[in-house]
Amino acid sequence: MTLKNTRASNYPEWYQNVITAADMAEVSSSPGCMVIKPWGYGIWERIQRVLDDKIKETGHENCYFPLFIPLSYFQKEAEHVEGFAKEMAIVTHSRLTMQDGKLTPDGKLEEPLIVRPTSETIIADSFSKWVKSYRDLPIMINQWANVVRWEMRPRIFLRTREFLWQEGHTAHASYEEAEQEAKTMLNVYSDVARDALAMPVIKGRKPEHEKFPGAVDTYCIEAMMQDGRALQAGTSHFLGQNFAKSADIKFLGKDGKQQYAYTTSWGVTTRLIGSLIMTHADDEGMVVPPKIAPHQIVIVPIIKDKAQREEVMSYVMRLYSALSKQSYDGEKIRVKVDTRDKESVDKMWEWTRKGAPIVCEVGPRDVKNNGLMVRTRNKINTPEWKQVVQFDDFVSSASKRLEDFHMDLYNAANTRLQQNQRTDITTAEEMQAYFAQQNSWVNGQGQKVAFVRGKWSEDPESVDKMKEMKISIRCIPEDQSQKEGNCLLTNKKAKLDVIYARSY
Amino acid sequence: MTLKNTRASNYPEWYQNVITAADMAEVSSSPGCMVIKPWGYGIWERIQRVLDDKIKETGHENCYFPLFIPLSYFQKEAEHVEGFAKEMAIVTHSRLTMQDGKLTPDGKLEEPLIVRPTSETIIADSFSKWVKSYRDLPIMINQWANVVRWEMRPRIFLRTREFLWQEGHTAHASYEEAEQEAKTMLNVYSDVARDALAMPVIKGRKPEHEKFPGAVDTYCIEAMMQDGRALQAGTSHFLGQNFAKSADIKFLGKDGKQQYAYTTSWGVTTRLIGSLIMTHADDEGMVVPPKIAPHQIVIVPIIKDKAQREEVMSYVMRLYSALSKQSYDGEKIRVKVDTRDKESVDKMWEWTRKGAPIVCEVGPRDVKNNGLMVRTRNKINTPEWKQVVQFDDFVSSASKRLEDFHMDLYNAANTRLQQNQRTDITTAEEMQAYFAQQNSWVNGQGQKVAFVRGKWSEDPESVDKMKEMKISIRCIPEDQSQKEGNCLLTNKKAKLDVIYARSY
Repeated sequence: MTLKNTRASNYPEWYQNVITAADMAEVSSSPGCMVIKPWGYGIWERIQRVLDDKIKETGHENCYFPLFIPLSYFQKEAEHVEGFAKEMAIVTHSRLTMQDGKLTPDGKLEEPLIVRPTSETIIADSFSKWVKSYRDLPIMINQWANVVRWEMRPRIFLRTREFLWQEGHTAHASYEEAEQEAKTMLNVYSDVARDALAMPVIKGRKPEHEKFPGAVDTYCIEAMMQDGRALQAGTSHFLGQNFAKSADIKFLGKDGKQQYAYTTSWGVTTRLIGSLIMTHADDEGMVVPPKIAPHQIVIVPIIKDKAQREEVMSYVMRLYSALSKQSYDGEKIRVKVDTRDKESVDKMWEWTRKGAPIVCEVGPRDVKNNGLMVRTRNKINTPEWKQVVQFDDFVSSASKRLEDFHMDLYNAANTRLQQNQRTDITTAEEMQAYFAQQNSWVNGQGQKVAFVRGKWSEDPESVDKMKEMKISIRCIPEDQSQKEGNCLLTNKKAKLDVIYARSY
Repeated sequence: MTLKNTRASNYPEWYQNVITAADMAEVSSSPGCMVIKPWGYGIWERIQRVLDDKIKETGHENCYFPLFIPLSYFQKEAEHVEGFAKEMAIVTHSRLTMQDGKLTPDGKLEEPLIVRPTSETIIADSFSKWVKSYRDLPIMINQWANVVRWEMRPRIFLRTREFLWQEGHTAHASYEEAEQEAKTMLNVYSDVARDALAMPVIKGRKPEHEKFPGAVDTYCIEAMMQDGRALQAGTSHFLGQNFAKSADIKFLGKDGKQQYAYTTSWGVTTRLIGSLIMTHADDEGMVVPPKIAPHQIVIVPIIKDKAQREEVMSYVMRLYSALSKQSYDGEKIRVKVDTRDKESVDKMWEWTRKGAPIVCEVGPRDVKNNGLMVRTRNKINTPEWKQVVQFDDFVSSASKRLEDFHMDLYNAANTRLQQNQRTDITTAEEMQAYFAQQNSWVNGQGQKVAFVRGKWSEDPESVDKMKEMKISIRCIPEDQSQKEGNCLLTNKKAKLDVIYARSY
C-alpha cells in the first residue's frame, strides 16, 4: 500500500503524495493558494491550541488588526520594504460593475491597499497611539491571521500565496527587556516543536544578510528534514528602536524624558505542517505526533454480518467510553469511532495514510476474546505494527502507548539531526566537494548532503560563494565553541560557528 | 462615573463611548477597518469556543479556503452577484516597484481577484471536485475567517469593511436533509444567543426580497436592541440546488442517476459583539455575560501601605486559588488578579467599564475580617452593587452568582423583547403613525418605536411602503397564527405574520 512515490524514488513527489493520501490539503482554483482540508486543519487547530496556551501563559493577549495596510505605510518604512519581497497583493478598486456584460473593477481607490504580508507597520501605528508613558509598557499582543506573499512557485504548506500564522508583537521600555522577550518566544517555539510536534530543532540567530528587514537580531529554530535539508520552523525578531522610530512609538520614561520604545515580533505559520510531514511521514503516508493529532485513537468496527452489528457496536462503544476517560498530556484522550458505510479494511488504510497514531479494529472474534487488534502507526512494516491486546490492558496502557509513540518519533528525528551534522569539514575545498555532491540522501539511505557545522568569517565574499553552492547559513547556533578556525567558504580566519545547509 | 453620552441622551454616541470605555476596539488607520483590542477579542474568542464546540457536535469539521476568489467565479454566479452588494475589495496587481522614489503597484494580474465577501462560490468549486457519489455526501464543513465588504458608512462591530466570522457550508443528497440542516444551524445560533450571550432572539425566515441572493430560504435570528431597533444576529441559508448547478456539484445517486446536490450556508460575525453591547451595556459601560467573559471574576488587591503587601497578596492568592477550583457552566471559573501598578479604585472602575461580571476588592480590613467586597456589575446604581461577603461564602456561591448574573441579563433582555412587540396595530394607518414617531425610546424610557408583529400581504407595493417608512420585515417568525387579517402596509388581505421594525 506504499505511496506512488517513495522518499527514495522521488522525494518532492512523495511529499505531495503524502498530502493527498492523508487528505490534508489541496491546490485551489484560486491561483497559488491552498484549501486546507479537515485533517490538515485539525492538526493546525491542535498546534494553535498548544501554542496559544503558551503565548497566553507568557503574558500575551490576542487582538486583531486589519488585513489591509495603506501603501504609504510601506513608503515610510523604507528599509523594511527594500529587504522584503515586494511581491504582494495590491487592492486598487472597491467595486464591480457590469460593463458590456462583463464584471469589471471600478471605484478606484485614492490610495492602494496592500494585503498584509506581515503586520509590523500597521501594528506599530496602533502602538504609537497606545503608548504615552512607561506605565503603558510593556504591550504584549498576538494575532492569529492570514497573510499574503505573492510566491511565484507555490508549494502546499511550504510556500503558498496565502498562509495562516500567528504574529506576536510587543513593545518595551528597555533594550534588555525587548531582547529577552525575543529570546523567550524563541524558547516557546522550540519547546512546542519538541513537546508537541516531536520535532527537535537547532536554536540560533540569523547572520546579518538573512535577518528580517529592519531587525537588530532575528532568532530562529531550524529543523532537519528527512532529505537533509533545513526548514526554518519559526522566527523571533528583536527590532530594537527601528520600527518605533518610523512609527513614532514614544513614551515618557521614569526619568521624565521622551524616548522610543523597543519592539519585537515573532511568528510561526502553517508551514509547520509541511515540516511535520517531512519530519515524520513515511512511504505509507502521514504520521501525526499524538499531541497534535485530531484523533489519537481511531476505532474501526468490523461487521461482516448484520446479525453481529449490535454485539460489536456495544463492545466498541464500551471501548470508546473507557478510552475517552483516560488522559494523555493533561487532556482526555481523543478517540474516534469510524462508523461510516465503508469496508473496514479501507477505513483502516485510510487512517493509516492519515497517520492517526493508533488504529484499533474490533470484530466479532475480538468481542468473544475480550480483546482488540491494535495498530501502532509508526511501527508499520515491523512485527510490532499489529498486536492483539486485551481490552483492559489496552485501556490502561493507552496513555503510555501515546507517550511512547511521541518519544519514538522525537528520538528518530533527533538521531537524524544529531548524526547528520558534519563537524569534520575544515577547509573550503572539502566544503565545496561536500555540497557539490548530488544529494539522494533520505533518512539514512543514499548519498548524503545534510548539515555542516563549521566556521564562518562574515566576509561579504562568503555570501556570494553560498549562492553559487546553493546553500545558506541556517543559523549561528546558541552553543558556540569560541575557538578560532578557518572559514569553510573563504579559508579566512573565523570565530563564529554556523550551520550550513540546503534549505526549504 | 457615567459615560459622556447616555443611552437616553445620545444613543449612537453612547454606543461608541461604551466601546472606548471598555477598550474593546478602535477605528484603524486602515480605512473602514477596526482594531479589535484584547477585551473585545477575548469576548470573540469565548464566543468562538462555545459556537465551535456546537458546530463540531452537530457533525461539522473545520477547513480553510482561499481569501481570493477569481473574478470569473462571480461572473458565473450572476444572480448571486446581482443581489449581492458589489462593493468589494479587488486585487489587480501583485508587486510594488519603486518609480521616481514612490512605491507603485506593478505586475498587473491577468484576472482580477476578489477578496472574499463570502465563500459560497469558491467552496462550491471544491465541493464539485469532492463529490462523485451519494457516498461522499453529506459534506459538512465550517471555516473561521475574515471577509471584506466595502461598506461606505463603517461602524465598529456593526459594519466594518473587514470583519471576522464563521461560515458553514454543507452539501446533501436530498432537499429535505439540506433544509433540515439549515434549520438545525439556526437552532444552534439561537441556543448560543440564549445560553451564552444571554440574548433572546426571534427565529424566523426572511421574506423573498430580503433573502440571501441565490437562496431558496434564508432563516435568521433577530434580536431587539435597547433602543427598539432590530439586529440580525445570524443567518442560515437553504440554497437548494442553485449553487450546485452553477458550480456543477453533481453526484451519482443510489438510483444510479446523476443529480445535483443541495447546499446550505450559515454564519455569524463579530457583529455579535455589537449586539451584546446594545443588549447588555448600560450608562456606566459594558456588561459582559459571564459565559463569554474573558475574566468572570476580577480580584483587585487594595494595598495602601507597603507593609500590608505580603499579607494582602497571600490572602488574594488564596482567594484566587479557591475560586479557580470552582466550576461554572462546565468549566473552571476564569479568575484574574489585577496586580498592575495603578490605583485600586481606578482598576475597579476600569473593570466596571469593561463589564467584568464580578469585581472583588480585598484590603487589609477584609483580610482581618476574612471577607471581601463584592461588586456585581449588573447591579450598579442599586444597593446590591456592593456587598461585603465572607471568604468561604463567596467561594461556595461564586458559581451561583455567575448563573444568577446570566439569568438576570437574559430576563431583562427577554422582558424588553416580549413587552415591546406591538400586536394591537391592525391597519396601515395606525402602522404609518406608529413608525412616523420620533423614536427616543431606550429600554423603557421615552417615546417608543420598537417591533410590530402583524400581517403582511407579500404585495410588491408593500416593499416600497417599507422603504418610505424606513422599516423592514425582520422575519416571518416560526410561530404563525394561521389566521387571515389585513396587511399593515397595504390593508389588503394577508395571511403571514411578520415582524416589522427599524434595524441596524
